[in-house]
Amino acid sequence: MSQAKHPELLFLDDLGVGQKFSGASYEFSEAEIKEFASRFDPQPFHLDSEAAKSTVFRGLAASGWHTASVTMRLLVEGGAPLAGGIVGAGGEIEWPNPTRPGDVVHVESEVIEIIPSHSKPDRGIVRLRSHTKNQRGQVVLVLTPKLVVPRRS
Amino acid sequence: MSQAKHPELLFLDDLGVGQKFSGASYEFSEAEIKEFASRFDPQPFHLDSEAAKSTVFRGLAASGWHTASVTMRLLVEGGAPLAGGIVGAGGEIEWPNPTRPGDVVHVESEVIEIIPSHSKPDRGIVRLRSHTKNQRGQVVLVLTPKLVVPRRS
Repeated sequence: MSQAKHPELLFLDDLGVGQKFSGASYEFSEAEIKEFASRFDPQPFHLDSEAAKSTVFRGLAASGWHTASVTMRLLVEGGAPLAGGIVGAGGEIEWPNPTRPGDVVHVESEVIEIIPSHSKPDRGIVRLRSHTKNQRGQVVLVLTPKLVVPRRS
Repeated sequence: MSQAKHPELLFLDDLGVGQKFSGASYEFSEAEIKEFASRFDPQPFHLDSEAAKSTVFRGLAASGWHTASVTMRLLVEGGAPLAGGIVGAGGEIEWPNPTRPGDVVHVESEVIEIIPSHSKPDRGIVRLRSHTKNQRGQVVLVLTPKLVVPRRS
């Protein structure tokens, strides 16, 4: 595992359960929260700071899909240096806390399972667990994807 | 259940397992696929039609988070007319097929479980299963969120 800026890409053979990664951080501006929501999740609690106060979010919050998309960017940009890229077949997703304007998030990931493919011996599935945390240490997203990772040829 | 353009909003009390919804459709342009990817998922198979051919996707494909975000928009815009909006605590996500440039997708949803809250009697959790399908009937996303739905007061 490398935490360097240009980490060596890791193949299935290089990974082990318990291996950890982390990467860069990202700041959510109020303008970007509203812009993303207007395109993909146009609901009052993501669009209108005043209206959001009387909703279940008690204030403006980023769309959960915005938080997930930013998490993906942080994983792609070195947060999980996997050969073949970050290719997910599916997984589980949870939003334990909202992302607020001004929040600065980073992603901490851990390999929790490695499943070599029998039908396709050139690859395997890696279950990663990623916690996206804000500057207060609160978890805003738990993503547990099944990633397709190639073997070293 | 209503399939009208301005459907009546449904509270927990109005929902039953097996209830189905569907809504509008959305076309993915190549330009939008690349733009979303450049912001949130900058990998060759989402950004570069030529480079994508030699990847696991065998051609340009939308980011899975783009497909998920568009699915959210279709749910919010009448695809699941729930009182209180579409508020997810988490769930499962799968991408069985890629979304391609020019694909036109729509969302078909079904209520699969209703769990009244004991601690918060004014609401409950509804598990919805949404299939996002392209114009060829292929499923590009299966989303099974746990949604927070208020009771009729």
